[in-house]
Amino acid sequence: MSGDHGFSEEQRHGVYRAIFERRDVRSQFRPDPIPAEVLERLLRAAHHAPSVGFMQPWDFVVIDDAQVKQRVKALHEHANAQAAHNYRDERAALYRRLKLEGIVDSPLNLCVTCDRERGGEHVLGRNTMLDADLFSACLAVQNLWLAARAEGIGVGWVSILEPADLSCVLNLPERVVPVAYLCLGYVEEFLPQPELQAQGWRSRLPMGGLLHGNGWGGELTHSPFLQALQAAVEAGDPPTP
Amino acid sequence: MSGDHGFSEEQRHGVYRAIFERRDVRSQFRPDPIPAEVLERLLRAAHHAPSVGFMQPWDFVVIDDAQVKQRVKALHEHANAQAAHNYRDERAALYRRLKLEGIVDSPLNLCVTCDRERGGEHVLGRNTMLDADLFSACLAVQNLWLAARAEGIGVGWVSILEPADLSCVLNLPERVVPVAYLCLGYVEEFLPQPELQAQGWRSRLPMGGLLHGNGWGGELTHSPFLQALQAAVEAGDPPTP
Repeated sequence: MSGDHGFSEEQRHGVYRAIFERRDVRSQFRPDPIPAEVLERLLRAAHHAPSVGFMQPWDFVVIDDAQVKQRVKALHEHANAQAAHNYRDERAALYRRLKLEGIVDSPLNLCVTCDRERGGEHVLGRNTMLDADLFSACLAVQNLWLAARAEGIGVGWVSILEPADLSCVLNLPERVVPVAYLCLGYVEEFLPQPELQAQGWRSRLPMGGLLHGNGWGGELTHSPFLQALQAAVEAGDPPTP
Repeated sequence: MSGDHGFSEEQRHGVYRAIFERRDVRSQFRPDPIPAEVLERLLRAAHHAPSVGFMQPWDFVVIDDAQVKQRVKALHEHANAQAAHNYRDERAALYRRLKLEGIVDSPLNLCVTCDRERGGEHVLGRNTMLDADLFSACLAVQNLWLAARAEGIGVGWVSILEPADLSCVLNLPERVVPVAYLCLGYVEEFLPQPELQAQGWRSRLPMGGLLHGNGWGGELTHSPFLQALQAAVEAGDPPTP
């Protein structure tokens, strides 16, 4: 048996490509429809995410109705106008220039939800970490996002929405939380870097500053393994200016 | 430009393989060390997850110290003994038979955390969905999990731990939440299906029951697209007994 359990170099490369070339898409959507069988593959990818106690707490609300999209777009515009007040001067001007969603431009919207009562009162593993069900739904989102990238489909997560208002528009029962509101569609291009980075909103952090050995703040020096990891991470981080 | 932005069939297949053949590993760990440059790739995959406002709220505590592992294992044993009281009779017997972690068996443990104050007071997009930072850390976990599968490395998420106790063992500052405690290592095999399913704890839900058209409970009949989706999903679901 090979150490990689059968992944060819090219398959492994595909996984890393999806991870590194995935983007949060807001502006490059094309109107062409996504074929139903392609969406089925994306949803099945989401449905095969790990979940605490195998509870599979997710549901998928598929939105192709223009009126529903318009109502969600209006919710976004309201929440975004509020959020813009958090910034001042140049930062405020930059914030207002950013396009943060493609709700109407994208052919399809998808809300991934979490049913907090699925699996009954005692879900295995959800005794101490009570949000593990919400976390499971997030893992489903990332499966879908990466599969979409491999299919040439862009995904954008719209987080500037009041959850209670969104629940109202989508008729969600009280026990069901809207975790992610996603816009999906083929795209003109996947940008070479994240849009917020390209526009100067925030930079990618060097990874070396995010690693700790055996406890918070622990140096990567206490074992030959940690020392080798430190060297590998420094080699991969961009040079300090 | 091709519609898939350059993914070959084999690369795309690699992404779906990682998604469908990923397992939550508890029992099949081999003791061989993970090379530092392979762990570096996995961490960089995690670091390239999407994050709300590009805040990158994650840190990575890498644990290769046997004493730290033993302390975490003791926390798990305590929390798991409590959790076992939730079940009765056959279910309780089955619960006690399940092996739910590989903390000490795996060569490496990794805690992925979320710094709730990173990025300052107003993180773009985290105005209405306040847990979007925790969700971002989850997306990083799934990137790492899938990259690990492509490298032949198994990952298990130990959720049966009291977060406050884990923070204490790892010296986490108050603003930093332990989102995922992971066990990593090469494995003897990746099981053909999830362990909780194979052991009869819970079955995979048919996906057809998890889809809604344009709102909760909406039938997939209101557009030709939704009808085609319904047909594709039914074709992919296992036959009803």
